[in-house]
Amino acid sequence: MDVRTYIEAHREEFLSSLKEWLAIPSISADPGHHDDVRRSARWLADHLTATGFPTVEVWETPGLPAVFAEWPAADPGAPTVLVYGHHDVQPVDPVEEWDTPPFTPTERGTSLHGRGASDDKGQVLFHTLGLRAALAASGADAPPVTVKLLVEGEEESGSVHFAELMKARRDRLDCDVAVISDTTMWAADTPSMCVGMRGLTDVEISLYGPARDLHSGSFGGAVPNPLKAMADLLSALHDRDDRIAVPGFYDDVVEASAEERELIARLPFDEAEWLATAASTAARGERGYSTLERIWLRPTAEINGMWGGHTGAGGKTIVPRSAHAKVSFRLVPGQEPLKIQDRVRAFVEARVPDGLRAELEFGGPGVRACASDLSSPALKAARRAMERAFGTPVLFTREGGSGPEADIADVLGAPLVFVAVGLDGDNIHAPNEKVETPLLLKGAESVAYLWEELGGTA
Amino acid sequence: MDVRTYIEAHREEFLSSLKEWLAIPSISADPGHHDDVRRSARWLADHLTATGFPTVEVWETPGLPAVFAEWPAADPGAPTVLVYGHHDVQPVDPVEEWDTPPFTPTERGTSLHGRGASDDKGQVLFHTLGLRAALAASGADAPPVTVKLLVEGEEESGSVHFAELMKARRDRLDCDVAVISDTTMWAADTPSMCVGMRGLTDVEISLYGPARDLHSGSFGGAVPNPLKAMADLLSALHDRDDRIAVPGFYDDVVEASAEERELIARLPFDEAEWLATAASTAARGERGYSTLERIWLRPTAEINGMWGGHTGAGGKTIVPRSAHAKVSFRLVPGQEPLKIQDRVRAFVEARVPDGLRAELEFGGPGVRACASDLSSPALKAARRAMERAFGTPVLFTREGGSGPEADIADVLGAPLVFVAVGLDGDNIHAPNEKVETPLLLKGAESVAYLWEELGGTA
Repeated sequence: MDVRTYIEAHREEFLSSLKEWLAIPSISADPGHHDDVRRSARWLADHLTATGFPTVEVWETPGLPAVFAEWPAADPGAPTVLVYGHHDVQPVDPVEEWDTPPFTPTERGTSLHGRGASDDKGQVLFHTLGLRAALAASGADAPPVTVKLLVEGEEESGSVHFAELMKARRDRLDCDVAVISDTTMWAADTPSMCVGMRGLTDVEISLYGPARDLHSGSFGGAVPNPLKAMADLLSALHDRDDRIAVPGFYDDVVEASAEERELIARLPFDEAEWLATAASTAARGERGYSTLERIWLRPTAEINGMWGGHTGAGGKTIVPRSAHAKVSFRLVPGQEPLKIQDRVRAFVEARVPDGLRAELEFGGPGVRACASDLSSPALKAARRAMERAFGTPVLFTREGGSGPEADIADVLGAPLVFVAVGLDGDNIHAPNEKVETPLLLKGAESVAYLWEELGGTA
Repeated sequence: MDVRTYIEAHREEFLSSLKEWLAIPSISADPGHHDDVRRSARWLADHLTATGFPTVEVWETPGLPAVFAEWPAADPGAPTVLVYGHHDVQPVDPVEEWDTPPFTPTERGTSLHGRGASDDKGQVLFHTLGLRAALAASGADAPPVTVKLLVEGEEESGSVHFAELMKARRDRLDCDVAVISDTTMWAADTPSMCVGMRGLTDVEISLYGPARDLHSGSFGGAVPNPLKAMADLLSALHDRDDRIAVPGFYDDVVEASAEERELIARLPFDEAEWLATAASTAARGERGYSTLERIWLRPTAEINGMWGGHTGAGGKTIVPRSAHAKVSFRLVPGQEPLKIQDRVRAFVEARVPDGLRAELEFGGPGVRACASDLSSPALKAARRAMERAFGTPVLFTREGGSGPEADIADVLGAPLVFVAVGLDGDNIHAPNEKVETPLLLKGAESVAYLWEELGGTA
């Protein structure tokens, strides 16, 4: 029985299992649902045992548990793949906006509705179906690669114990490639692979001037105004081409290859539609790059918040004592968050006018960007696997946002490959989350082929 | 009996009357004290009648009453002088910081402590003593000029009905010169006259971008950020010399004369002491002007408040939907607030980037600056009068702030002359307000000579 036939034959069984799991409201951000998160971990462990994994463990953390499983390849020389996903889900408020109850999974047409259907239970579960399909197709009783699963329970509440867990269990997690199934592809008819995510570091900048608010009649125009200095500082963050003017900011940037830019240009991007999604009437960004390149390939400096002085009703004619701003920087491969923090600090301190004092508070060590090597064998294998499943060329995308994935690559020292079938229209983190069931089956088919490709048995 | 002898002889009687008036807690900003403000008006009316004014009237307003009095000169061709002051006082909080109860007037050394002692009951009352002294010295039973008093009851709560009252009573207020006794002089040993106050107009600027806050991972660096645009806009408000860059802003400025700048330079200004008062560690302002000139003679643009995006704890990686700033402009003679508003609007609108929308809300029509003509006979007469009283040269100062005085000049079409003896150290609007009684007596002496000087009888 070939992979596709097996998957079609087990469609109902697969969906039935998924619905069972989706019925567990494993909301990690809500302490009232922490028992449900633990129940979700046990459900998954049982399911993995039933799938045939010889090793299945629930890994406790100071917070909520992750699930680990391992199925060694018959050939001890075969590569090891680690699959990352999560079994906790987002909260459901405003619950009155759901068309069907969030924890009563409901099929409507090709869609399966329910919290976690796309993010991430559906995408975790297609791995078990894909693995069974690969075994059925090969007739073997062990996969062509050693398959490890690590499915965390705190992803939707900040992955606060995840890096620590990975470090503590580092020896059990050894692998040659990490497969991430927690993202989206371009469109249902345009399968794609994410090949990078931006990093992040953020800072709160405060400028302090007079020891108290001053009457602007008595002192205005004769002492430095912290809000004015903040405006000058933030205005100087970018040059006329909307490039970031912090000295050295771009020094370590690894530019995307011409091949990747060419592949991005092939995506059927509709700028008008994108602007409608952005609820903005104009696109604007670094000169010389397209909108997609600005979001995916280029670092940014964004003012997230700013405040100081009188912000209530009416006028108050003061020179305020302080000004504050929150600025976040999206980073790209090559940029070290801590090095960027040093450069931002130097930029600010070089620009503090006489009479003012600057304080910078960085929001932790930041997150590095990650990107796949487009020429790596693992990435090529995954692309071939998805193209076999979908029967159409697979393009590359990136994510403009930042996640714990870079930590995974760092801790494990393994390349990341994103195999995921979510869609932007899946309403993840919103009411009426759903997943397209045909895409889940394509996901299962893709990973079945991927194990073959990586095991060299295709 | 000469003026000074009369005043010395009536010192105790004068202070006794003032203490009686200061005991009335006429706090206009506190509705619980509005009856006291009315009582204060009646007390003043009775006192003016006792002084000898043939006409004394309490003028009701939709709010709190003003007191008007008139004493015609014997010579119907003599000039008419209108004295402006106010009989309401500031609130007293924090009352626990007063060394003596605010409405139990207490003499300590040369100081008389109590709310309103300097601002403004003491400075209103020296006019009655001065007028009696002038009559005693001349032996006449009418003053050498027609003296009118207008003492409002809402100055400390915004003078909300004052302009309307003046317009309604315009015919009764006709005068050749208006004397303002509600300000300060440079120092007890450096008598001075205020010869100008700055005007004011203020605006709240809002910039609107995306219809909602956007995720900076998905949209940052590719749509215009309203906070960034606000920083650019406010940074562009001044040029490198800290001159205001709004086109046409300085077009109508009437520059202060070389004589006035020279007189300001003669004031014993201690910049280090001033910075200590400002609680600032540096002075900064328009290139080419001293600190006093920046505050008194030059228009300014001051950012009073600014806000937008995430201003709470922690990070929130958004492109905010809007940015807001409050900006106030101090104006100098020649500048029309409404014309400045037009120019500020044009400046902002010319700089709104694509994809953003600006809204400007001006805080009313603004206030014009006022300044005395240093060569006017009235000003020269007042300076001579003060020099006779103090026995030392009288210098000129200005006020950096703005008040209703420009309205008085506008409505009455009369030049303003500031004769006042308050000190910066009088703690007006603060706990432990006081006045120096020797200066109040010098104030009385000054106006006695002023009526002579203006009446041509000196």
